[in-house]
Amino acid sequence: MTVKDQAIRAKEAAATLATASTGAKNAALAAIAHALDGNRPQIGAANAKDIEAARASGMAKGMLDRLTLTDSRISDMITGIREIIALDDPVGEFVSMSTRPNGLTIGKKRTPLGVIAIIYESRPNVTVDAAALCLKAGNAVILRGGKEAIHTNTALISIMREALAQTEIPADALHLVTDTSRESATTLMGLVGLVDVLIPRGGAGLIRTVVENAKIPVIETGVGVCHVYVDDAADQDMAAEIITNAKCSRPSVCNAAECLLVHKNIAADFLPKAKTLLDTYKVELRGDEATRQILGDCVVRAADGDYDTEFYDYILAVRVVDSLDEALTHIRRHGSGHSECIVTEHYANAQRFLDAVDAAAVYVNASTRFTDGGMFGLGAEIGISTQKMHARGPMGLRELTCTKFVIYGNGQIR
Amino acid sequence: MTVKDQAIRAKEAAATLATASTGAKNAALAAIAHALDGNRPQIGAANAKDIEAARASGMAKGMLDRLTLTDSRISDMITGIREIIALDDPVGEFVSMSTRPNGLTIGKKRTPLGVIAIIYESRPNVTVDAAALCLKAGNAVILRGGKEAIHTNTALISIMREALAQTEIPADALHLVTDTSRESATTLMGLVGLVDVLIPRGGAGLIRTVVENAKIPVIETGVGVCHVYVDDAADQDMAAEIITNAKCSRPSVCNAAECLLVHKNIAADFLPKAKTLLDTYKVELRGDEATRQILGDCVVRAADGDYDTEFYDYILAVRVVDSLDEALTHIRRHGSGHSECIVTEHYANAQRFLDAVDAAAVYVNASTRFTDGGMFGLGAEIGISTQKMHARGPMGLRELTCTKFVIYGNGQIR
Repeated sequence: MTVKDQAIRAKEAAATLATASTGAKNAALAAIAHALDGNRPQIGAANAKDIEAARASGMAKGMLDRLTLTDSRISDMITGIREIIALDDPVGEFVSMSTRPNGLTIGKKRTPLGVIAIIYESRPNVTVDAAALCLKAGNAVILRGGKEAIHTNTALISIMREALAQTEIPADALHLVTDTSRESATTLMGLVGLVDVLIPRGGAGLIRTVVENAKIPVIETGVGVCHVYVDDAADQDMAAEIITNAKCSRPSVCNAAECLLVHKNIAADFLPKAKTLLDTYKVELRGDEATRQILGDCVVRAADGDYDTEFYDYILAVRVVDSLDEALTHIRRHGSGHSECIVTEHYANAQRFLDAVDAAAVYVNASTRFTDGGMFGLGAEIGISTQKMHARGPMGLRELTCTKFVIYGNGQIR
Repeated sequence: MTVKDQAIRAKEAAATLATASTGAKNAALAAIAHALDGNRPQIGAANAKDIEAARASGMAKGMLDRLTLTDSRISDMITGIREIIALDDPVGEFVSMSTRPNGLTIGKKRTPLGVIAIIYESRPNVTVDAAALCLKAGNAVILRGGKEAIHTNTALISIMREALAQTEIPADALHLVTDTSRESATTLMGLVGLVDVLIPRGGAGLIRTVVENAKIPVIETGVGVCHVYVDDAADQDMAAEIITNAKCSRPSVCNAAECLLVHKNIAADFLPKAKTLLDTYKVELRGDEATRQILGDCVVRAADGDYDTEFYDYILAVRVVDSLDEALTHIRRHGSGHSECIVTEHYANAQRFLDAVDAAAVYVNASTRFTDGGMFGLGAEIGISTQKMHARGPMGLRELTCTKFVIYGNGQIR
């Protein structure tokens, strides 16, 4: 079946799914969870084939780890589905409803988006998470994973489709594009009128390619060049804890901090304190001249690009700034609009930072690592939007819906 | 100045505008209204040049009318600005705010989108309306109108920018692309990182070109192949009034009906009634065989394309259907997702139509002509979105904003 044929079937299935009850959707998800649980050996065998091929091709250890589905990771996927079942169904919610002077009653009601396509890289748990979230919000979904996970993804989708076939939700609500060539991605990006929204999940290169080439609406996710600015009125111990947590608790994710900005008035006091904590994680510092004067030659001289890089590693760019204004300017120039933090005890500076910084999440006195659907109380997330249209920041079930106006009249004409 | 230079300046101005008070924005709009009022002769002279050129090039009468700015139309533009001043400012509104178990207080706050670009065709009143709406919602705006209105648009923008320069809002919040070549549009569509949202307003060809070629987020507007379905349980007099109003009150707009679907059980009764009313506007009917059997040869035999056409004229496609299901299928295949109406006194059929039809606005017993920002109580509108992402249906000030998360912590780490 071609990608276009899959999309045509997905669109048909989406029409059924759009009016499915919450009970029917939850029953379908429960059937999927049960089927995954009952087919662990099949999933494991498929994953072993991918691992073997990846080893043979010399895949790096970190990547290999992300590709691996252990029994406990399969359990995590199943638990994830059960959590999604427990979430409130956003479909059918009325955002507003009122009666106009002419007697028309106009409501704005949440409905599914329709058909969602997701292009993503290695991690096979995305296959299950993304499918479950899209289905719960009433959407059909077309997944295109990477070629390194093709056996695992094929097994997962086959099990999930068979499970769906036993429920009220059509199996055609879920598709995997098995052709992992560049052409299949290009085809998917051009399915105007068949795919309603395309979400890329992966590295900066993948996301840029999708954003620039898609003819259908895209939600841009992920790239995070996040800053922690330590104000001259900061609680310095708190600031050291926050930058260490933001950098080191999980450097490989998009909400990790990449750059520390420090007000010049406290830099000589604060930088050694911060370094002591960061040293416990052996963080490499790349600083400007002022930082190097304070901390010495153990700080690598920062190159220009270092202030624009998502390191995904225990590396931190550092810069001493003259003022809050200079910090704001630095963030405007170098930030990716993901998560930005000020550490301060100064009321007006905190408020100014919250107002002036243009990002999905702006923090006072907390780690940027909290930018996450679960941590924000949205339940599971499909990704973190770094664009402004439709959704910004962590996207939960509600961000997988749109609205329509429903109008109750009794013969009104204009 | 190149288009890119304009966008760079607009982005700088947007940072100022994002934190401008409602009072400052309203004062800027009042200054613009005052300046337009004081420069009527200059506007009229510029418009006369465009009219002269358009006449010389043989522009059709309808187009020529849309291009013409009479004194009363200038007054309408000024009144429009005063109405926008009176609207509530959506910026700063909190969509939600709550405290998480760990003590983080997380709010979701409305902020401007940033820089909005609008590509549009002939009508010069869009220049003023769109600019005023974007500015009120805190956005910088780049306008690219058609070449036939270039003198008028240049005069309007020059007057508005001079007015802004006397206020707290920078003149660079407002730009006109004076190069009306295809290249300038292509450049604008490629300004990744500088323009946040692009809105095309015009004919289907323009919209399609922008949607398929833009590398930046687009809000698709406008094309309306709208249906009125007359159920067998309809109040037939009401139905005749509604289809006549939906078709004839203003055939040149996107919320006008293009197709009448009639249940077979009442077709023989209803179609002659509807025809009597439609005849007063000399509406040409293009029908299927069943319609022609009832109404005779005065009904043109419908060609396939007639069910997919936005006629913009006193032409109506007609089809007799066997059931509500067949009507729903027809709408799914031929509708453009704009506005759809059922006329019925049958409760379950009404509810089913509201649920099943996938469109921006779905009506029971009212004319599709109400799909409009003013009629829906949103105040002025920037356009009617027919896509699902970000905004669907009439877009007012709120749809020209996005949200950001603001997080108040006291040292939380993860």
